[in-house]
Amino acid sequence: MLKELRERVLKANLELPKYKLVTFTWGNVSEIDRESGLVAIKPSGVEYDLMTADDIVIVDLNGNRVWGDKKPSSDTPTHLELYRQFKDIGGVVHTHSRHATAWAQAGEDILALGTTQGDYFYGSVPCTRRMTPEEIAGEYELETGKVIVETFRNRNIEPKSVPGVLVHSHGPFTWGKDGFDAVHNSVVLEEVAYMNFVSHQIRPNIGSMQQELLDKHYLRKHGKNAYYGQ
Amino acid sequence: MLKELRERVLKANLELPKYKLVTFTWGNVSEIDRESGLVAIKPSGVEYDLMTADDIVIVDLNGNRVWGDKKPSSDTPTHLELYRQFKDIGGVVHTHSRHATAWAQAGEDILALGTTQGDYFYGSVPCTRRMTPEEIAGEYELETGKVIVETFRNRNIEPKSVPGVLVHSHGPFTWGKDGFDAVHNSVVLEEVAYMNFVSHQIRPNIGSMQQELLDKHYLRKHGKNAYYGQ
Amino acid sequence: MLKELRERVLKANLELPKYKLVTFTWGNVSEIDRESGLVAIKPSGVEYDLMTADDIVIVDLNGNRVWGDKKPSSDTPTHLELYRQFKDIGGVVHTHSRHATAWAQAGEDILALGTTQGDYFYGSVPCTRRMTPEEIAGEYELETGKVIVETFRNRNIEPKSVPGVLVHSHGPFTWGKDGFDAVHNSVVLEEVAYMNFVSHQIRPNIGSMQQELLDKHYLRKHGKNAYYGQ
Amino acid sequence: MLKELRERVLKANLELPKYKLVTFTWGNVSEIDRESGLVAIKPSGVEYDLMTADDIVIVDLNGNRVWGDKKPSSDTPTHLELYRQFKDIGGVVHTHSRHATAWAQAGEDILALGTTQGDYFYGSVPCTRRMTPEEIAGEYELETGKVIVETFRNRNIEPKSVPGVLVHSHGPFTWGKDGFDAVHNSVVLEEVAYMNFVSHQIRPNIGSMQQELLDKHYLRKHGKNAYYGQ
Repeated sequence: MLKELRERVLKANLELPKYKLVTFTWGNVSEIDRESGLVAIKPSGVEYDLMTADDIVIVDLNGNRVWGDKKPSSDTPTHLELYRQFKDIGGVVHTHSRHATAWAQAGEDILALGTTQGDYFYGSVPCTRRMTPEEIAGEYELETGKVIVETFRNRNIEPKSVPGVLVHSHGPFTWGKDGFDAVHNSVVLEEVAYMNFVSHQIRPNIGSMQQELLDKHYLRKHGKNAYYGQ
Repeated sequence: MLKELRERVLKANLELPKYKLVTFTWGNVSEIDRESGLVAIKPSGVEYDLMTADDIVIVDLNGNRVWGDKKPSSDTPTHLELYRQFKDIGGVVHTHSRHATAWAQAGEDILALGTTQGDYFYGSVPCTRRMTPEEIAGEYELETGKVIVETFRNRNIEPKSVPGVLVHSHGPFTWGKDGFDAVHNSVVLEEVAYMNFVSHQIRPNIGSMQQELLDKHYLRKHGKNAYYGQ
Repeated sequence: MLKELRERVLKANLELPKYKLVTFTWGNVSEIDRESGLVAIKPSGVEYDLMTADDIVIVDLNGNRVWGDKKPSSDTPTHLELYRQFKDIGGVVHTHSRHATAWAQAGEDILALGTTQGDYFYGSVPCTRRMTPEEIAGEYELETGKVIVETFRNRNIEPKSVPGVLVHSHGPFTWGKDGFDAVHNSVVLEEVAYMNFVSHQIRPNIGSMQQELLDKHYLRKHGKNAYYGQ
Repeated sequence: MLKELRERVLKANLELPKYKLVTFTWGNVSEIDRESGLVAIKPSGVEYDLMTADDIVIVDLNGNRVWGDKKPSSDTPTHLELYRQFKDIGGVVHTHSRHATAWAQAGEDILALGTTQGDYFYGSVPCTRRMTPEEIAGEYELETGKVIVETFRNRNIEPKSVPGVLVHSHGPFTWGKDGFDAVHNSVVLEEVAYMNFVSHQIRPNIGSMQQELLDKHYLRKHGKNAYYGQ
């Protein structure tokens, strides 16, 4: 069932250790088949070098397992909430990549300081508010998704233009048009998280880059009249 | 004698260079067979790429060598004190991993700032007090174990829930249900030591994460009702 | 056409991932044949591990493609402006290498703090001013080249003696006698960018090295009476 | 001539890239045969992966080449001054390893903050004063050796107990009983340079470790009654 999708999700998951975004099994990738509304996701606690396409689990958008005998990742309800609310996205990634997680622990947005970020993120990568004791005690993984969605709605950020978020005291989620694209954005996020950390060490209280330069870089790659390739 | 245990301890020791936790021979892993009270430990000064299971030394809980012709690691008395006082643990690791050691040199606890730490450590990783001149001049390696035990008793920390410590001006020790689990905890400790360093650079004087979030993350993996797998 | 030049430019481009100067396709190398005035440059958006010499594009100094069916790198107009204005240079490299980019994001020169820099750069590596909204909205990639040239002219820096620059809020460009030499200078720039970051963390407000020591190191390698080899 | 010595010096030089202590050819190892007073040293500017034992040059203590057709490393006069003045040493290494160099650029000693340093260096690793314009304009490489020797004499440091130094605005030199031992000390120096940098970021103005602990660690490995092996 959805074998091709499972193969793709397996491959996308294997890119996490390849790009050094995960330690042990601390990460997961999913991808949605929008036509059927089914989501393929990494199984819970299986090591990357032993995982096969048959370990990938298929769930529907309500979280019911419809294929596979492994337990889906415990983070599945977060992924599903993102797919339900962000209609344009096709893949979701969660990692504890070192520098993005360090920013999440500090509870700070990653400001756009340069064109590396501007080529992929149209502005700051936001950090969510802390979750309430009620949210934590409730359906925690679902609530994690909800606080992400709230962050984008309240701050009027377009998820397609800023394909990632830091969950406060936790770590990053990214998304994209499919699983691979979401992994790609995780790599970029980790890279800019590191560079922005260093820039802030060199010059504390540095502000965001010029809006004009951000417009130029983001739109030359993603706008209607995109022309860019390095 | 205890061949299987020695094979396991060899393998666990070889994970230290694999996870880049050691330079040269700066680390050691042991595991205890609780039934017989015998401990298998890395020999002193043997290089990792030459080590075989026959180099692993077996000692009893009083430190008498009962098998093997190599000298056990000089840190053996520290390991043994931990096995004697922390009845639940089955493996012990000592390394000079870079960031955990940097925190030990700074003499500071590693606060729980995020869920990466909370998934494995139920709170701060404590740093011991400085040792006294008398302790240093006495049975130093044994006293190192005693100051670790004192830290956990005085601060009322459960060794099973916080499976690691920083020895002041020295470096980390971790433990676990066996040698592999102790190595796993060393990897996690080094990872959170790095991330917490970066978080503190980004936001100085950052406090610990919310207790509710720490409870949630630690207990969903380790509590009676554990359900978590990433 | 210019097959040997294309082979060289391919090889020089492949050195970027080898020296870990690029993530994905975030970098490009070109080389000029001064006799014909033709420039070989990386194609736009082609992955390094799939690139062949037939993907390398040949353009003239006005930016007209004279060989190849790929689109030249979008950064081509920047490279060409450097070749037009800096008559002595034979190769140009652009990357988003982590630490040089972090300095560019901070908008700060990299001061010469030690002989590692002094062996290759005869003084600070300058950071350009921010570009104006008009420059950004205009022929942006060409204007990027112009602001580099302006920086060297206004500050009276000899491009041959300081073979690199930081473009504000963007990243580094380096050059050299050919493409390989330009890559070599990119490696050095990234190395000194890292070391100077650490030195500034250890001792904030550190000043430049002694002029006499800079003279000695630069001139023993690059002066008329050069004799140095480590 | 001295083939075995040249083979050893070749191997010791190849350890520099293996331990990631050098970029390009930025480092060199020598070893002395005290009986004959002859020194084998890396040739100038030869790449590590092309170097053979026949490229290693033999010089006498006055710097006369007595074997080999390559030019000896330009740093040879520094090595020779160390062999002439520090009678106990048998090998010398110079690198621009990242963190030791960052400390040299900051012009600061590396204080002994923990047992990692104390196991190899009996106290701080000193940083030399700046060289005078006269020293720089004179026999610079020889004067570099002289300022190292002056540092140890003026501060009453025993070169055997502190087998390394930072040359101000330049980088580290280490030594040992032979070339391999000197490389070993370079690895340790780079490791403690990194860890002490991080410790200082975590806790600025941290002081040296307790003298008693330093005594214990250094002397249990290097004293008359040494017994230690990790």
